[in-house]
Amino acid sequence: MSNPKTALVISAHAADFVWRCGGAIALHQKLGYEVTVACLSFGERGESARLWKEGKSLDEVKAIRRKESENAAVALDVHDIQFLDLGDYPLDLGEEAQARVVDIIRAVQPRFMLSHSQYDPYNTDHMRTTEFVLTCRMIAQAWGHNPGEKVLGAPQLYLFEPHQTEQMGWKPDTFLDITEVWDKKRAAIECMEGQHHLWDFYTNVAENRGNHFRRNSGGQAGGRAAKYAEGFQSVFPRTVDEL
Amino acid sequence: MSNPKTALVISAHAADFVWRCGGAIALHQKLGYEVTVACLSFGERGESARLWKEGKSLDEVKAIRRKESENAAVALDVHDIQFLDLGDYPLDLGEEAQARVVDIIRAVQPRFMLSHSQYDPYNTDHMRTTEFVLTCRMIAQAWGHNPGEKVLGAPQLYLFEPHQTEQMGWKPDTFLDITEVWDKKRAAIECMEGQHHLWDFYTNVAENRGNHFRRNSGGQAGGRAAKYAEGFQSVFPRTVDEL
Amino acid sequence: MSNPKTALVISAHAADFVWRCGGAIALHQKLGYEVTVACLSFGERGESARLWKEGKSLDEVKAIRRKESENAAVALDVHDIQFLDLGDYPLDLGEEAQARVVDIIRAVQPRFMLSHSQYDPYNTDHMRTTEFVLTCRMIAQAWGHNPGEKVLGAPQLYLFEPHQTEQMGWKPDTFLDITEVWDKKRAAIECMEGQHHLWDFYTNVAENRGNHFRRNSGGQAGGRAAKYAEGFQSVFPRTVDEL
Amino acid sequence: MSNPKTALVISAHAADFVWRCGGAIALHQKLGYEVTVACLSFGERGESARLWKEGKSLDEVKAIRRKESENAAVALDVHDIQFLDLGDYPLDLGEEAQARVVDIIRAVQPRFMLSHSQYDPYNTDHMRTTEFVLTCRMIAQAWGHNPGEKVLGAPQLYLFEPHQTEQMGWKPDTFLDITEVWDKKRAAIECMEGQHHLWDFYTNVAENRGNHFRRNSGGQAGGRAAKYAEGFQSVFPRTVDEL
Amino acid sequence: MSNPKTALVISAHAADFVWRCGGAIALHQKLGYEVTVACLSFGERGESARLWKEGKSLDEVKAIRRKESENAAVALDVHDIQFLDLGDYPLDLGEEAQARVVDIIRAVQPRFMLSHSQYDPYNTDHMRTTEFVLTCRMIAQAWGHNPGEKVLGAPQLYLFEPHQTEQMGWKPDTFLDITEVWDKKRAAIECMEGQHHLWDFYTNVAENRGNHFRRNSGGQAGGRAAKYAEGFQSVFPRTVDEL
Amino acid sequence: MSNPKTALVISAHAADFVWRCGGAIALHQKLGYEVTVACLSFGERGESARLWKEGKSLDEVKAIRRKESENAAVALDVHDIQFLDLGDYPLDLGEEAQARVVDIIRAVQPRFMLSHSQYDPYNTDHMRTTEFVLTCRMIAQAWGHNPGEKVLGAPQLYLFEPHQTEQMGWKPDTFLDITEVWDKKRAAIECMEGQHHLWDFYTNVAENRGNHFRRNSGGQAGGRAAKYAEGFQSVFPRTVDEL
Repeated sequence: MSNPKTALVISAHAADFVWRCGGAIALHQKLGYEVTVACLSFGERGESARLWKEGKSLDEVKAIRRKESENAAVALDVHDIQFLDLGDYPLDLGEEAQARVVDIIRAVQPRFMLSHSQYDPYNTDHMRTTEFVLTCRMIAQAWGHNPGEKVLGAPQLYLFEPHQTEQMGWKPDTFLDITEVWDKKRAAIECMEGQHHLWDFYTNVAENRGNHFRRNSGGQAGGRAAKYAEGFQSVFPRTVDEL
Repeated sequence: MSNPKTALVISAHAADFVWRCGGAIALHQKLGYEVTVACLSFGERGESARLWKEGKSLDEVKAIRRKESENAAVALDVHDIQFLDLGDYPLDLGEEAQARVVDIIRAVQPRFMLSHSQYDPYNTDHMRTTEFVLTCRMIAQAWGHNPGEKVLGAPQLYLFEPHQTEQMGWKPDTFLDITEVWDKKRAAIECMEGQHHLWDFYTNVAENRGNHFRRNSGGQAGGRAAKYAEGFQSVFPRTVDEL
Repeated sequence: MSNPKTALVISAHAADFVWRCGGAIALHQKLGYEVTVACLSFGERGESARLWKEGKSLDEVKAIRRKESENAAVALDVHDIQFLDLGDYPLDLGEEAQARVVDIIRAVQPRFMLSHSQYDPYNTDHMRTTEFVLTCRMIAQAWGHNPGEKVLGAPQLYLFEPHQTEQMGWKPDTFLDITEVWDKKRAAIECMEGQHHLWDFYTNVAENRGNHFRRNSGGQAGGRAAKYAEGFQSVFPRTVDEL
Repeated sequence: MSNPKTALVISAHAADFVWRCGGAIALHQKLGYEVTVACLSFGERGESARLWKEGKSLDEVKAIRRKESENAAVALDVHDIQFLDLGDYPLDLGEEAQARVVDIIRAVQPRFMLSHSQYDPYNTDHMRTTEFVLTCRMIAQAWGHNPGEKVLGAPQLYLFEPHQTEQMGWKPDTFLDITEVWDKKRAAIECMEGQHHLWDFYTNVAENRGNHFRRNSGGQAGGRAAKYAEGFQSVFPRTVDEL
Repeated sequence: MSNPKTALVISAHAADFVWRCGGAIALHQKLGYEVTVACLSFGERGESARLWKEGKSLDEVKAIRRKESENAAVALDVHDIQFLDLGDYPLDLGEEAQARVVDIIRAVQPRFMLSHSQYDPYNTDHMRTTEFVLTCRMIAQAWGHNPGEKVLGAPQLYLFEPHQTEQMGWKPDTFLDITEVWDKKRAAIECMEGQHHLWDFYTNVAENRGNHFRRNSGGQAGGRAAKYAEGFQSVFPRTVDEL
Repeated sequence: MSNPKTALVISAHAADFVWRCGGAIALHQKLGYEVTVACLSFGERGESARLWKEGKSLDEVKAIRRKESENAAVALDVHDIQFLDLGDYPLDLGEEAQARVVDIIRAVQPRFMLSHSQYDPYNTDHMRTTEFVLTCRMIAQAWGHNPGEKVLGAPQLYLFEPHQTEQMGWKPDTFLDITEVWDKKRAAIECMEGQHHLWDFYTNVAENRGNHFRRNSGGQAGGRAAKYAEGFQSVFPRTVDEL
């Protein structure tokens, strides 16, 4: 395609893109988008407790987590998944990481981007990622950064659902119906073998967001029968031709 | 039409609908919507300083303000304008007013509604109107209110732009391109003969919101060439099939 | 006991106390508290859609909703349930209602109180109830209100979980383990026959709050194995002898 | 004076003006202002615990509280003190109260006004007073309210210090040095015989606000040697000729 | 003068000081202040799109932007303008930059400072500048930093107007009448040849802030006839002798 | 004890732990906790004005501040005090500091932690410390950080009282009665010889927080007779078995 529809997910740790926006990924692939996922780390140190308890080495943990994420990406029909291997807890978000992510943004030219909540006292990797993404978005828009490259427009940045929404000050303003791709999301979730305790948690989330979708699309007077949904918070205002 | 697209504006004082969402009204009429405007008062006591300085009586002030608003409604191609004459400064938002507005909402069955910001220390009529509208929306959704009538679904409530946005804690999340109906909005503005000092103010607002539209629709990498826009804050989340 | 431990739930509509704090009620009854539930209305007009669709009359709706609530109260071992029948959508929270609720507060002398979130754009009955409860609490503390009666101390007011937490600006600061009374809560939920669509919704909520309990009580290093929990937001600061 | 400088304090209960802005009152009297205090109630039911414990009647409580307030007003050199006797816990802020307060505002034509914080979960009289004051200020500005009377300009509304500042969401943006009138404020405080427990509390507040004044006026590099201060939060922006 | 009145503007990119506080600069020069402007970068990469589209090199862009800024500084009668050349998109705000800015602050000893809003998702250079300025202000106040130098007092930090105020959470609490120096500000604006699209935008802002000035200085009862104004948000509380 | 109760205070500058949580330290020592204090710096450059005015050298200032802090620690019965000597104004919170603090956290295995407010425009060292502490807490919880070490559970992080609470957006949700250890806190305060001006300030704070304790523990109907208290803001929700 000369001008495909594209989207970019920036995930602090390997599995974040699955729990938090797996439905959006699969749905937009179905809608003809090419969705790229950039995993800044494998979540190897901080989000792989079971593997460490089993005595795996760092390289083993990273390999296993990478494999799980690749499997999940396949389940979601991801167009491209990239692992930046920046280390986790904490992420190294220095100049080199910045240059790489700006390059990815410019290469993808996303119509919209997805990343973490702006506050997370449990996990500062998440909130630092979002500020980092805003900086990279800004650089990608600069005509003087690598002059000659195609500059970025003004894609929306959606913040996907964090683990404890209220503690993060995250407020969804957009619910997306993912009913038709739910099976793909559940399949991707089940690729995350070290985190069984979250499988049902995020299934519950999807069901309850489905309820919220129905409430906000008409409620008891005929809200649409979405069974599963995902919620997102927009950073930037929308520009529209009709309310 | 058996099932026309409809919208409802609830304006505390007669002129509010002109300055704050005249473009949205004219544009949606053009898009085939039937837009109803409900003016809770004429703004006779609080927003007609010039007429009082000229020594007009209360009835004269109300008649003049009504006429101006009707003229503006014509300029905007408003489908229907209703004056509830609830008094202003302060509005009487008691049980009777509530019943009347619920009836209007049910009659119109709007796809979306428009009203004031949720906070306004300069003008408590504005903020009380918005809480009142939320209550009326809730009642209109109740199956047990006037059983047998068609109940309301879950229309969005957009809060239109107040006079000093930052003081009201109002934050637009939606910019609407009103370029193609700007002439109608300006004509409606010029119907407000007692408030000449606001004509250029709201022209400036429309131009600068046009700039914000361009910034958010692509910026220096090709934002759309909107010349005039209006901003709105959504109370409820959206439900969508594509981000 | 001459001085029993007591708690008071103030529920805008008949079923709110079940979904939102049924576990807290059953648990505190088990801990020796006497928990009183005051239902300000039956939710007859606004939260009984199924019954209206079936063609029931107002009196029938109220009777059915009352019966369901009484059944739920039995399931939860509620000490006392009172129906104030103030009407709903909107509630009539005038002087008479105020006097009655102050009397109940003084009679119960609760160690803590439970009510709704402070903001709810979907349902202004909820948010007006909370402001009303704060006013009644203040009056119950006044030495000059019905002098001679025992005045109220300074009980905490916990705000229980609303339907769409993030839209209400509700942030839980306290998670209560309700695992041992979950069966009672589920039984009470199943008394709400007109609202089947919420049974699994609130089961999901309880399970996911159980996850949050585990996270905040030790996480992957040994958080307690709570299976079900409820969340609450405190209005007032705690006074303690140990952090 | 043909055009004296004036200020208006609106105090929900009789003693509020003493603790919260007694210094501002005495200081502005000294600066040539005529400061009027409007006490909406005597705080007879809710803020006179000691008198009720002593078995006083309602009329006695009101008379005693009035006398204390008048004494305090004398100590502060108040220009005029008015008691509206609207009842307390809760205040009756209906149409009649509104008309009376609008009349006072127009009669005084204050350069600035003083009232309570915008939120107070302990005492809804306080927060309802502030919303009421904003409504009265709006009406007093309306050319169509009692046409022919002098309309109000746009005086600042300062919110004085509530009892537990952080719980009320109150943030001072202005510190006033009251060192030279501290003796008057302490004398006024000592008129409040039923509230001995607050004398030292508000002396501590004044001393610590003095520290804050010093910090913000130069700190360790030469902040002014204010010993006592009061803090205020502004509702409206300032208009200035120099930053 | 042995002790001149001084002010310091810290501008992330070359042109920010013009659009955002050009009026304040010109006015305070007229009032006898010596106003220093520190430009952290030329905005060469991120805010010079037109020049890059014309094929200029980095050095050319910087030279042109520097020249424009110097011209604008002349138009505004700036006392001193310094270019720190820290690079932009992103700024390098490391230790060296910090030391240089602390030196400037101590040399200028400003009565007040001006910088950016505290949040800006479009441009993280802006929000990082403000946190950086707070850190530099703190260091400049430390007696142990370069002992022997004159330490800084406690100057106000005013945050000037960002491009999309509501998106930045910026709320002005101070409006400054710049009518008498408007011609100078417009002349400075016209020095920014690469940003024609902003000339009228900021003229509109100045006119509308003039309206806000009038509203807040008396409104329809005689607000001052300011034609142009600028708005500012204060970070610190004021210390005053009169309200 | 094989498993003692422990707590950890992380103090940006040497004296912070004394003013802000000296009572909590002494009280928990008395309750059988082992409380460790980690001072990130001596506050040598920024909080030792008197010593610099006396002409002391950097080494002298640090030694004196260290001695004062050690004396205060003795007065409070601190279990262990550690000085990380990271420099102040600004603190160096780089990778090495991070590794050291993570080690301390893991060694102490605190039941709860104490640190600064999340915002402080006067002192960015304070707010950067709190974000740093959240990052260190996260790393200490990671099974992959120094595998084999005992990982951290999920201790509460309490934010102790900053100097100007309202300016920092700090809101206490917990008041601790420190009456029985007040003498120890005052003794510790008097170890801070360079900051006499704060001795009475923080005595006033403790007295007034005692008043707040009484208000929130029963008020005029029998609040507990605490004379001195300290306030804390919790970052994370509590997990409880009883409300």
